[in-house]
Order: sequence, then structure tokens, then C-alpha cells
Amino acid sequence: MTSEEFRQCGRDVIDWIADYYERIETFSVLSQVQPGQIRASLPSTPPLQGEAFETILDDVDKQIIPGITHWQSPNFFAFFPANTSGPAILGELLAAGLGVQGMLWSTSPACTELETHVLDWLVDMLGLPIKFKSDASGGGVIQDSASSASLCALLAARERVTDYDSNQRGCDGRLVAYASSQTHSSIEKAVKIAGIGFRNLHLIEVDDHFRLRPDALARQVKQDRQAGLIPFFVCATVGTTSANAIDPLTAIGPICQKEGLWLHVDAAMSGTAALCPEYRYIHDGLELADSYCFNPHKWMFTNFDCDCFYVADRAILIKTLSVLPEYLRNKASESGAVIDYRDWHIPLGRRFRSLKLWFVIRYYGIEGLRYHIRRHVELAQKFAKWVEASDRFELTAPVPLNLVCFRHMGGDTFNQLLLDGLNQSGRLYLTHTMLNDQFVLRFCVGQTYTAEHHVHKAWQLIQATAAELESK
Amino acid sequence: MTSEEFRQCGRDVIDWIADYYERIETFSVLSQVQPGQIRASLPSTPPLQGEAFETILDDVDKQIIPGITHWQSPNFFAFFPANTSGPAILGELLAAGLGVQGMLWSTSPACTELETHVLDWLVDMLGLPIKFKSDASGGGVIQDSASSASLCALLAARERVTDYDSNQRGCDGRLVAYASSQTHSSIEKAVKIAGIGFRNLHLIEVDDHFRLRPDALARQVKQDRQAGLIPFFVCATVGTTSANAIDPLTAIGPICQKEGLWLHVDAAMSGTAALCPEYRYIHDGLELADSYCFNPHKWMFTNFDCDCFYVADRAILIKTLSVLPEYLRNKASESGAVIDYRDWHIPLGRRFRSLKLWFVIRYYGIEGLRYHIRRHVELAQKFAKWVEASDRFELTAPVPLNLVCFRHMGGDTFNQLLLDGLNQSGRLYLTHTMLNDQFVLRFCVGQTYTAEHHVHKAWQLIQATAAELESK
Repeated sequence: MTSEEFRQCGRDVIDWIADYYERIETFSVLSQVQPGQIRASLPSTPPLQGEAFETILDDVDKQIIPGITHWQSPNFFAFFPANTSGPAILGELLAAGLGVQGMLWSTSPACTELETHVLDWLVDMLGLPIKFKSDASGGGVIQDSASSASLCALLAARERVTDYDSNQRGCDGRLVAYASSQTHSSIEKAVKIAGIGFRNLHLIEVDDHFRLRPDALARQVKQDRQAGLIPFFVCATVGTTSANAIDPLTAIGPICQKEGLWLHVDAAMSGTAALCPEYRYIHDGLELADSYCFNPHKWMFTNFDCDCFYVADRAILIKTLSVLPEYLRNKASESGAVIDYRDWHIPLGRRFRSLKLWFVIRYYGIEGLRYHIRRHVELAQKFAKWVEASDRFELTAPVPLNLVCFRHMGGDTFNQLLLDGLNQSGRLYLTHTMLNDQFVLRFCVGQTYTAEHHVHKAWQLIQATAAELESK
Repeated sequence: MTSEEFRQCGRDVIDWIADYYERIETFSVLSQVQPGQIRASLPSTPPLQGEAFETILDDVDKQIIPGITHWQSPNFFAFFPANTSGPAILGELLAAGLGVQGMLWSTSPACTELETHVLDWLVDMLGLPIKFKSDASGGGVIQDSASSASLCALLAARERVTDYDSNQRGCDGRLVAYASSQTHSSIEKAVKIAGIGFRNLHLIEVDDHFRLRPDALARQVKQDRQAGLIPFFVCATVGTTSANAIDPLTAIGPICQKEGLWLHVDAAMSGTAALCPEYRYIHDGLELADSYCFNPHKWMFTNFDCDCFYVADRAILIKTLSVLPEYLRNKASESGAVIDYRDWHIPLGRRFRSLKLWFVIRYYGIEGLRYHIRRHVELAQKFAKWVEASDRFELTAPVPLNLVCFRHMGGDTFNQLLLDGLNQSGRLYLTHTMLNDQFVLRFCVGQTYTAEHHVHKAWQLIQATAAELESK
């Protein structure tokens, strides 16, 4: 592709994206295609000769768009958001254009140093403990996802408790990890991957706000020690996936400290709220955590993937993941004066992801980011009030931030039908969970362009769809 | 960012990238900054108020570019390439613009189906065994890197041999994995992560072409069984990192089959060569492999990250990595008619990476891709001939494809000084390895825009720098 062609095709793609956001509300939020429908529209064999870029871009409209679930629609209230923004998209573009691979400091010093710098900025921006900064004993690194971050935390914890032995000789089936019954499924996945075995993940019961019960944790640890097992890792959550519960770190931390357990705090969804001083309480007690992560790719306008993972002791993480073959040796690494991020995560290679994060922080500024976070929380709180005021719906969990769990009084089947009806309408997208054995709808406000009228229309549609179902 | 602002800033970034490629040869290929130099140029605190996009883009030139090692320079001959192209960059841009998260089929059917489709195409394009196709028992998935792909292969192998027990109860320290002494370091990393322990990775000696010795493998497996250990996994390589050696799959496969070992074939670098029928011999014997991967982000003009990972039996991979919490349940998944790629890799979330791969395959066409691969091989072969004809330099390994391992006759210290001198000149970038306990330079041709004159100039510079060193 010549330079001139790149300029022209590039403009076309930029315009395509701008047009896409202008017409995004005309699409069904949840794609309505049937399994196999997209593949059926694609040619069965790849082209022998190259095709014009224009043709390919046309086919995006024809063959791809029908199969898109529009995560960036302001009517997307499902799961947790994976929001983005103009500066993030352009940061990703620039990273792709530069095409550097930052596995070692020397393979692009700016890729490493900007990342360290921006992750240090974020410690201050969220008011996190300074031990997570790179000029203390810790440091931050961008991971693809909280799943990978939690895995790295678990591996470092395994390394610490077995004093390198699990790394050398493998696991012995006695290590036990803890999480609450509401903890994200990635912890179970990590425990399986790390050779701990999922039966050695002991799930702790929660209180009536869906928060991990510290007394139950302490009891279980004691019991496991008596049974000859080796407790070593606890994952606490700031903003659980089902109900946005915030585990009591102030009580969990001292238990972990006393028992010598690694405390990982997964704030993937809700950590971003700490940009606003009034929500910093969600991190109370984080001082005793060994590791922490939150996802700018969820709620901080930075497109997936961008999880920020912090450790209090970077030495143990590096010891866990470092392998040094001859072909990666270089003077900068051997001087000890630089960070080689390849030793901070699972893959060897890595993109220049801090660029988009830097773009977002600079373009919005701290105040700009706070503005949008506050707006989302306010809209969710408004929605929660409407639910509370209704005689047909009820809240099923507290609403600390931007997720509302609610249900119609009509029972599980009714709520499942209600969910299906809403999602099939294409006008919004919601997902569900189970809380106290009840089928519950989740309404999460976090898409960049969601405004009050979107939330208001959503509530009207929910009420109307329910009324229609009631009348059947 | 308004639509109009996005269009304007987007054009600016597109032009910035086009300009960058036009001036890329004016930069030092290897960044010459000192540790900490980039950070020192950045403000210590993030901005409270947002800044103009223009200012941020200006700062890329001022603060970032000095710390870039230019992977996309035609004078980049280091490591393995991580090449890219116009259509790949624009595919990545479009994926960022759409901002979909394809963890489940339902969260964007097109993200899943295009990926399955393009990975099936690639089975045909490379002439891989059809068992790796999605309409057979297998299937392909895009991973971030071969490191992650190898880890997934190892986990599925662990699952198979322990009949789910390692997943439930953890590892027991008796599992043994095999690779050659030349296998990529990611296998050791995977073995550590999976709780196997690196002492249970038994490295098999290589022949004088740096290829794994099947007889030595068979002997070691026998010995390990006699010692009460449980052999379960072999990684063979098509194109080793140090010397581009191609392990003899035709001899390794039958050993794995007889012994019930999972055979993973890592063709991260060289697999792409099989686009050309004349190089397909590199995959001879692949029929007996359980899993396979190659990296379009190395040598197929698709920017990092894009590793294509295939399994012959998708059921075991899914069983290994699947965890199903209530909040991810949905009708499409439960129908069994769709693929949910979250169960095929470590992270839960995922970008729409098949878009850039689709763009590249369509824009170049099979013939276009072959043209560039043949050109790279031809240039490397030319370089190898120059080395051979020289009385001061020698080849240190066979040159099957596009990597030349060579050294000056002057010994290890001389070659280290030569490497340093070349890289400090900024005019090219080479890396080294150790082969037969000798310090060896690696010259890999794989950057998209590398032409004959770049290779020729490189050889002249290498000779001139050596002559200067000789005269000191």
C-alpha cells in the first residue's frame, strides 16, 4: 500500500468510524443474526489476487455489521461496559502505525517508560497506596485483561509461599486459594491454569450485601490449616460482576496479613470510580493488598485491551515469570536500570498500549474523566430510584455506583421473558444474573455516550414491555 | 470528542503515520536513549484539565519518537520481525472504532464467525491438515502470542493425560514435558505457569543442524517412565528462534503417538512460509500434531498481536479452559451451535483481531503474500551467499528460509564489539545468539519494506565496521 493510498484509505476508515457513531442508534444493539449467518455470507475461499481496499470496506457494511453487537451504543447496558473514546481509538491507531513490540526496554524504551509513567500517574489519580508506584518496591503494568492480571497475582503468590519450589518442581495439591461466592469466574480459571486445582479454590460465603464475610474467611483458613492444607491467596473484589458488591478490605487485609496470605484486589469494574474523591472509600483497606487491578477498558474510555495491574513487590512477580534465553540478553537489561515488561505477564511480545491511555488522560484531563464517571453514577442512581418507586419492580442489591440489579415482581420466568423481549427489540441490551437464587436483571450505565434520555427511554421500554407481558 | 473533531484528528494521525513511514529511514533503528531519559521528559503529574489533541500529537514527536526502536524500518533485521502493512493498521483502527468485545458469540457474532472463517481459510492457504478446521474436530483461534498458544496447548495436554484431575485437584509433580535445547523460552515459562515445574521440562539435545533428535527424545521418555514420571507433552519447532532450525516432525510424531504424548508444533516464525508451495515441506509430519501455531504478526504483514493457534480436538481445549458463571449464560451458547472463544484462551475479553487479518488476506491476496515471502527468502539467501563468499565471515547454521546466522572469524569478543558498533550506528539493528557456545549474529529479513538495497547496504556496513575494528 503506497503512502498516498494509505492516506486516502485511512481517511475513508476514519470517516467510516465517525459515520458509524452518528448512526449507531439505528442498529439493533444486540445482533439478531442466527448462528452461521455471517459465515454463510463470506466466500468459502480466500482471494488469489488482491482486492481493492474500497471493496473490503464496503463488505464491512454488508457482511460484518449485521453481526455486530454494538458495545459502543449508548443503549448498551449489558455486562460491564467496554467503553472507548476518540482519543483512545486514535491512540490505538498510532500504536498500530508505529508497530513497535515492547517486550524489552531496549526494543522501544518509550513503550516501557511511558507505561511506567502513566501507571504511576494513575496511582495518584485513584489515590492508591504509594507502594504500588515504580519508585517504591512495586509498580504497574498493562495486562490484556483482569483475568490475566489475577493469574499473574496467583502465580506470584504461589511462588512466594512455596519459596520457588512450585516453579521448579510443580505444585503438590495442597495449596488453597480463597475468593467469595461472588468473585469473578476468572479466579477459578486462574486456579485451574496454575495447577492448583479448582477444588482447592474455597469459596467464602457473602453477607446480605453480597460482600465476602471476613469471619467466614478466617474460619475457613483455620480449618484448612488444621486439615494440613496450605492457604496462600485471597482475591477480594471491589465491584463484583453480579451485583457490584464491595468486599470489606479493611477486615480482609488484617486476616491475610496475620495468616501470610497474598491479598489480590480485583477492582476491574469499579476502580475507575476512585478518580472522584467522593468514591475513594471503595479502596479503604487497600494498604494491605499485595496486588491490585482495574480496567480502563471497562469504564475509563480506553478501548479494550487495557487492564492496569499493580504489585507491591515487583521482585517476586519478576522472579515468577522471568526466563532469560541468550537471544533476549542485552546490556540495558543486564544493567538492572530498566524494566523489561515481558517478565510482568504471560506473553513475551506486547503492543504499545500506554499510548492510548496517555491520550485519554491528557485529552480528558482528570476533571474531564471525573465528569463522565459522576454522570454515569448519577444516571444509575436515578434509574434505581425509578425502580424503587415502582410497584411492579424491586431492587435486588444495593446500588453503590453505576450498576442496578432489579427484577419484576412476576417471578423468574417472567423476568427471563422480559429480558428476551427487551433484547429482541434491539432498542437496548441488558444481561442477567442470579442473586439469592432469583433471576435478576442488570442495568449498567457506563457507555461513553449514554445520556439521561437513553436511560429514561430504557426505563419506559422496560415498563412497557413488562406491561405487555402482564397482559398476556 | 465530537464527530467533526474525530474526523479532523483522525486525518492528522493517518497523515502522521504516512509521514512516519516516509521518514522512517532517517531515524536510528535502535533507539539510542539512556534509561530514564524518556520519563525525564514527561511531566510528573497528569493534567487536571483536558489538553488539545494537537498538543498531544506534537508531544509524540518530541517525547516519544526518541525512545522508539523502529521495528517497521526496512533496516530492522533483529530478533524476528513483527511486520505490519497499511491494511493491517486500518483493520486494527476499524476494530478499535467498532469497540466490540467478542468473549461470547452473542456479544458480536461477526467477531467470532469471521475469526473461525479466516482461520479455516488459513488452513487451506498453508496446506495444514484439515483436522485443524472448524468443520472437523478441531478449529483455530487468534491468541495474543505464541507464548499464550503454547501455554494453552500445554494445559490441554495436562488435562488429557490426567483425565481432568490436574484441573480439579492440581498437579502432582510427576508430569514431564519435552522440548529441544533450542525451543523458545516460552515453553519453560508455560511449564512454570501451569504448575508443572521447570525441572520437569526435559530438554532434548539437537543435531548439528540444531534440530531436535528424535532418538534422544524416545530414550528420555523411556527413562522417565522407568523413573515413575508421566511424560505428556512435546513441543517441536518449525523455525527455532536462534537458528531457524526445523525439527523433524515426521520422526517426532510417531514417537508422540506411540507414547500418548501431546505434540504441539510451534511455527510462530516460519509457518507463514508455507503460503508458498515450495516451502510446505517445513510442515511435513504435521498430521500427527495435536496443536499448532504460527504468527501472522511476525511475517504476514499483520500488526502484533495476531497468533493463529489450532487444535485437532477442540473439545479438550474447551473442557480445560471453560468456566461458566450465571452472568455469561445465554441461549446461543446453550444451543451448542456457536463457538465462544473465551473458552479457547486465558483472558475472558477479546478484541476483533480477525478484522485486520481479513483485511490483509484480501488486500494482498494469496499471490501478493507469496510474492513478499519469496522476496524475503531470496534476500536472505543472497546475504548468506555473500557471507559464504567472504574470507572474514562464516555461516554458523543452515539457512532454510529468511534467517542468516553468521559470525566474523575474529572470535566472540570481536563479534560482540561488531554488533555493538553496528547497532550504535543507528543504521541497522541486528541481534545475537549463542550457537555451539559461540557468539553469533542473526540477520533476519522480514520487514515489509526491506528491499535489496537495504540488505546490500547492511552487508557493506557490516564489512566496513568489521574492517575498522580489525584495524584497531
